[in-house]
Amino acid sequence: MQKSRPILAWETLLDLDADTPGARSSLRDRVERALRRAIDEGRLEPGSALPPSRALAETLGVSRWVVTEAYGQLVAEGVLDARTGSATRVSLGPGTALPRPPAPGPSPSSDAAPPIRYDLRPGIPDLRATPRSRWAAALRNALASLPDHDLAAAHPRGYAPARDAVAAYLSRSRRADPDAARVTITHGATDGMDLLTRELHRRGHRTILVEDPSWPRLRAVAESNGLRPVPVPVDEDGVDTDVLAALSAQTGARAALVTPAHQFPFGAALSPGRREQVIRWARAHRALIIEDDYDAEFRYDRRPIPALQRLAPDHVALIGSLSKSVSPALGLGWMLLPTTISPPISASPPSLVDQAALAHFLTRGDFERHLRTARSRFRHRRARLLDAIRRDLPGLDVTGIAAGMHLVLALPTGTRAAALTSGGAELGLGLTALQRYVTATPRRESLVLGYGNLDDALIEEAVARLALLIRNAAE
Amino acid sequence: MQKSRPILAWETLLDLDADTPGARSSLRDRVERALRRAIDEGRLEPGSALPPSRALAETLGVSRWVVTEAYGQLVAEGVLDARTGSATRVSLGPGTALPRPPAPGPSPSSDAAPPIRYDLRPGIPDLRATPRSRWAAALRNALASLPDHDLAAAHPRGYAPARDAVAAYLSRSRRADPDAARVTITHGATDGMDLLTRELHRRGHRTILVEDPSWPRLRAVAESNGLRPVPVPVDEDGVDTDVLAALSAQTGARAALVTPAHQFPFGAALSPGRREQVIRWARAHRALIIEDDYDAEFRYDRRPIPALQRLAPDHVALIGSLSKSVSPALGLGWMLLPTTISPPISASPPSLVDQAALAHFLTRGDFERHLRTARSRFRHRRARLLDAIRRDLPGLDVTGIAAGMHLVLALPTGTRAAALTSGGAELGLGLTALQRYVTATPRRESLVLGYGNLDDALIEEAVARLALLIRNAAE
Repeated sequence: MQKSRPILAWETLLDLDADTPGARSSLRDRVERALRRAIDEGRLEPGSALPPSRALAETLGVSRWVVTEAYGQLVAEGVLDARTGSATRVSLGPGTALPRPPAPGPSPSSDAAPPIRYDLRPGIPDLRATPRSRWAAALRNALASLPDHDLAAAHPRGYAPARDAVAAYLSRSRRADPDAARVTITHGATDGMDLLTRELHRRGHRTILVEDPSWPRLRAVAESNGLRPVPVPVDEDGVDTDVLAALSAQTGARAALVTPAHQFPFGAALSPGRREQVIRWARAHRALIIEDDYDAEFRYDRRPIPALQRLAPDHVALIGSLSKSVSPALGLGWMLLPTTISPPISASPPSLVDQAALAHFLTRGDFERHLRTARSRFRHRRARLLDAIRRDLPGLDVTGIAAGMHLVLALPTGTRAAALTSGGAELGLGLTALQRYVTATPRRESLVLGYGNLDDALIEEAVARLALLIRNAAE
Repeated sequence: MQKSRPILAWETLLDLDADTPGARSSLRDRVERALRRAIDEGRLEPGSALPPSRALAETLGVSRWVVTEAYGQLVAEGVLDARTGSATRVSLGPGTALPRPPAPGPSPSSDAAPPIRYDLRPGIPDLRATPRSRWAAALRNALASLPDHDLAAAHPRGYAPARDAVAAYLSRSRRADPDAARVTITHGATDGMDLLTRELHRRGHRTILVEDPSWPRLRAVAESNGLRPVPVPVDEDGVDTDVLAALSAQTGARAALVTPAHQFPFGAALSPGRREQVIRWARAHRALIIEDDYDAEFRYDRRPIPALQRLAPDHVALIGSLSKSVSPALGLGWMLLPTTISPPISASPPSLVDQAALAHFLTRGDFERHLRTARSRFRHRRARLLDAIRRDLPGLDVTGIAAGMHLVLALPTGTRAAALTSGGAELGLGLTALQRYVTATPRRESLVLGYGNLDDALIEEAVARLALLIRNAAE
């Protein structure tokens, strides 16, 4: 999972969760209502420009159609104003023709988002613990040691030392079936998913099975490459492989995106029986399993489960990155592919200097040192967070194995997560409704609480504020 | 122009120029013949795997159709062997069913290419003069000073300090009409071209006017995004804008990719009259000019010509990068766009650390310091190269203004450039036939000689060897 843009002002501005009144409404309606609300409440001023539909779609993790439909409806009603060659803007009202210049003051950019003091957003590693000096050393080493002739040479699928280092790491740490020849260095999981799904589309795939709920970004990338996501429900054993096989038969889908080590966001590990079952399915249908190995390094109760890829290297494409384990700011990741699939070579591969630094960082053991420290920090943070939740929010269900950097907190009956996320922002809490990750299967109102970037000094305070918020919402 | 993969073993193995016997043959035929020749001559052994058609097409800068057609023909003839789920291989001959494992020894990877001692390939900067320590300092500074909260924040179209620094540089040095809000940070020119042409396709464009000859990579990216290139001949005043306008009228093309500062490869500067004319065309048709500003910083006889973008910021998209001016290994570039076009936000933007380093490198003046040194070095190198050519190859025409890092050398009547490129490789000369860049307009047999990465100590020796080669070819 790519976590490079977790703070998105438009996500904040347009809270898609704020208006789900029990019944499920379509995404298009939710976007339209969110826009209308932002305008009615003055958060979007008359004359202010909206992002291009494609950009907004990407930001919200919805298809572009959803946004153009929502814009189109509001333009038709005169709420928005669209003219060729210019941004869609909030209408100035009847009789006004020209948009006035944007008002001075903070624009709706990411800077305008309220500061998050208690960071409970999922998908962000500990930004305070970024191994800045180790990464700087790796970069320095790369720049000092890269031979001149490598600087302009072709490195299809990545710089050989980086591919070797990733293969060795995946073998050692994820017990994957390694082969440097099948490793591609990417800009991150999103980049890998982009290359893979383009290739799947080229081969005639038009659908892809995805877990429901799941991280929206990879799903959106598949969709933008012409693969319609088919949601498959998950439970406490991970993705329901019976339903997966049935939906595959029904839709013809021959590719599946799964998180076997640690389901996002429910936090289950795929049970051994289901691991076998999904591989049987892939073998029977010559299907491709895309294993999103986003935070498998962080397991606190036992050793990490080996990668699914190990069991069926001919049917599993493993994608991973440094974004959640080290930093989203490095823009580096990898794929380990079956021999049967050979996606297009990226026209814009990662910087060679960065790739050489990655090789250095992995082979010197800096990555695993960083992971050990992070694992220990997250284990303690998780334990304290759970203690605080049990104390301040007794009786609320928490879901997720002792792993990763997030958990799911089920809310008391009648409390709406969407109401908490906006209220939480005012208290400095960065909260995320489970609903954001849900595609089809209705779920109990819950929050996904990430603790990767939660300040240790503020854990109890964060939970106290959250408890206050939940109590107030219940009254 | 993206120069990140100038050494490509398959380009060497399959010399598309080697068989152009006066008359123009189709690209498909040339690829097919090149494959056949490589097999006949034993450069491709029975059983050895060919690259996926898409990869080979990208490498050769041709459309994928060309390669699949060539493969298809050879498979039909039993020269190649294709089976589902496996690479296309050189056939083992009648009666053999299974491909044998690849032979030991060097594989046809870039490592197997003969070492180039006299590097006359165009498009590569001086690799020995890569500002390694300055770039390491910029990276160190970036890692030391990036605020924690920026590490995981959204930076649509790029990190604000980098966009500001690029806008300031373009204004100062290219006299462009700057606006940081319209700057996008990219992985390089190819990335920019990719984003731009995807957007053009989305808006209904199906053709793009390109200079003939021109750098194949950007053309190939446009083609892969569904824009058919329409070649427009160039002469000593740059691209022929009369023909451009006529072809636009004829084909409906409303986008043009041009190199106004320094035509590639002929080295002309677009004349003032034509600058005005191409802008008039763009205004009249609401067309987009893509200004590939690939080496405009290097002008030796006068100050660099200001960017075309300055004259019509509403109609010109300027794309540039560090690849030719600093190093292709950094993977960084930029676009300055008109307000009228807003390409998709990249799903895999450049590393934030790299972007912060770019900001530092530009604002500290390191980039311009590097350019000054490089400019002086290239000026002297060019002068010595021209002296040596006049002495050892008297009477041969050299084309190109005093700029950039390459020139075009017309060959004596009857001498075929393709014969020189293969013969040159044996003498350690990295040579490139003009034909490689030609799409439609027939040209005199010529070599494009790059001197960006030519060792100063070897200039005279390189020309002496080249002269020997040309004399031998004439006999």
